[in-house]
Amino acid sequence: MTEQFVGYAALQPYVKDNKDTELKVHTFESRPLDADDVEIEVAALTNLPPVAAQIFTSLQMQVEGWNRANFPLIPGHEFIGHIVAVGDKVNQLKIGDRVGVSPVAGSCGTCKECTSAFGQLCANKVLTYNGMHKGFRTYGGYANKVRVQESWAIKIPDNISSEEGAPLLCAGVTTYLPFKHHDLGPQQRVGILGIGGLGHLAIQWARARGCKEVVVISSSSNKKEEAIKLGATQFAVNSPEELTKRSKSLDALLVCGSGPSTNWGQLLDLLDDHGKLILLDLPEQPIAIPPAALVYRHLSIVGSFVGSNVDLAEMLALASETGVRPWIEKVGNSCEEVNNGIKQLMSGKARYRVVICGKGRQ
Amino acid sequence: MTEQFVGYAALQPYVKDNKDTELKVHTFESRPLDADDVEIEVAALTNLPPVAAQIFTSLQMQVEGWNRANFPLIPGHEFIGHIVAVGDKVNQLKIGDRVGVSPVAGSCGTCKECTSAFGQLCANKVLTYNGMHKGFRTYGGYANKVRVQESWAIKIPDNISSEEGAPLLCAGVTTYLPFKHHDLGPQQRVGILGIGGLGHLAIQWARARGCKEVVVISSSSNKKEEAIKLGATQFAVNSPEELTKRSKSLDALLVCGSGPSTNWGQLLDLLDDHGKLILLDLPEQPIAIPPAALVYRHLSIVGSFVGSNVDLAEMLALASETGVRPWIEKVGNSCEEVNNGIKQLMSGKARYRVVICGKGRQ
Repeated sequence: MTEQFVGYAALQPYVKDNKDTELKVHTFESRPLDADDVEIEVAALTNLPPVAAQIFTSLQMQVEGWNRANFPLIPGHEFIGHIVAVGDKVNQLKIGDRVGVSPVAGSCGTCKECTSAFGQLCANKVLTYNGMHKGFRTYGGYANKVRVQESWAIKIPDNISSEEGAPLLCAGVTTYLPFKHHDLGPQQRVGILGIGGLGHLAIQWARARGCKEVVVISSSSNKKEEAIKLGATQFAVNSPEELTKRSKSLDALLVCGSGPSTNWGQLLDLLDDHGKLILLDLPEQPIAIPPAALVYRHLSIVGSFVGSNVDLAEMLALASETGVRPWIEKVGNSCEEVNNGIKQLMSGKARYRVVICGKGRQ
Repeated sequence: MTEQFVGYAALQPYVKDNKDTELKVHTFESRPLDADDVEIEVAALTNLPPVAAQIFTSLQMQVEGWNRANFPLIPGHEFIGHIVAVGDKVNQLKIGDRVGVSPVAGSCGTCKECTSAFGQLCANKVLTYNGMHKGFRTYGGYANKVRVQESWAIKIPDNISSEEGAPLLCAGVTTYLPFKHHDLGPQQRVGILGIGGLGHLAIQWARARGCKEVVVISSSSNKKEEAIKLGATQFAVNSPEELTKRSKSLDALLVCGSGPSTNWGQLLDLLDDHGKLILLDLPEQPIAIPPAALVYRHLSIVGSFVGSNVDLAEMLALASETGVRPWIEKVGNSCEEVNNGIKQLMSGKARYRVVICGKGRQ
């Protein structure tokens, strides 16, 4: 059964200061409601994160793991809403449940990845937007309603509001995952590079997991107070002098923000022997790694990508219990407000996630 | 008690085809025999390996973990001989024992690394040559005798000859270690890039550990038969076409040889999700890593450096039991033969290690 949904769509690549390229109200045919699908009425969602922005601004760019942008494109990779319809075989969730969706909206459920709680790596995963599901394109949370596989609609704990919950579903699980998979806790000194959408949550997880030290590294001292408030035990400005003083002082470094000028050799030098540099953001260019540090000190560089449905539920439970919450700025759910929110985000001034609140009012 | 030893020394940086820069017979004052030292009469040792050659050929180069070359420099980073003297507190070894020495000839024995079988990472480790031990410079196996800490003199199993044993002490343990630390065995498909001093041993360890697949990748098909003989279950030429066919086919890739033209992105593509690229050789330049592969597929890049005294003993026991042996070319122990051996090695034609055999005959 298909149906007409309505959302805010990019109809062409986004160009700064060009009003024609902003999101427009767009009506589209939903994909059929499969037997294992739920239909969610969107109540809150995060405005464009960096990776989505990259896709969104360039037709040329092919980001591995994501697809080239197909227009019209309705973004919205992390959102929360109530279930308003369920397929015939849905058995865990019911109409009225409040659920959240991450950048992955479906997977095969039977492969090695799916059965080992790594469903986000399933070769047949369905991306929440700009993806394909059984021949139908997928559209994200910038719409009044979205249909997703039941197993990827995650119940939201009662003490987490929809507005604060939405950014947990991508940024939250992305920053939570390394603490789980690399067993970061009371014995570890953890560094966090970059205080933004990812970093401000990573700091909180480090605190929630009781890490021995939480060392926040930022490009300037502007965010020092915020870092301390979020849970940093130490703060350092990202300068050669400051970092040299901290040589071999960390067991893990979570890279939540990097750029063309990032000195990867100096970051590796922050790690004690056997340390891990954990890459969470996605630099656009190849990164230059001095191999000697890896070899002579048994360091490693690892990547981590969002989380599985199992991880999402665990992460939400820990947030519920420990009070980890994103810092958000709210915008209303109208096309104009959403476009303004995108500009705010792209200016780099948002602290730290812009969340679209309320049902669509087209 | 110091004593006059004699060896072959580099007196200046090596320059190809310049006879003045070749090794010369050189007499030097030994370091005192400490209470926990043994003195070894050298019987066999491996001629210069690549890293030593790098140090040896350039005054300018500072290789992390090693020191800038200090002349006169007596190389010799892996050798075997009999113990001819022991310090007062030596209690595990005795005169007459046949022992081997790796690139590390001493460590503090009490730090976190030393007490967790990672003594090769001890901050106060003593390098076998071009290092410092209590204020005395260290000289390697290109000498009639060498004094080393008892705990770093490793007994050689009877069924391993000194000539075949010498290359196990650096190349052997370097290639053994990833199989131990990354638990590579019957469940893993292991790739080995480069068939040389390291690679030809890595292939044998993969076979000895019963790896599910042993995929050898070489720059041409010249060494295909040798690879099969060494234990490869599959062979691939390192070309974009061949590698593309093998996308996501490996659980681990041991990089035993790389160069300025190595396409690291394509190597990462060989790895299945969660796979590890394990760096054993030491490219001189930073390596360019496309971050997306790490992030979206949970890949990692790790380094590994020689082995501890614990690892050396384990490695030798496994070699003794399973028949892992280097392929060697022998040269006699005279200054002229040693210099010829160095030329042979630098020509890239050695299969695969050149070993200096017999006591020095200066």
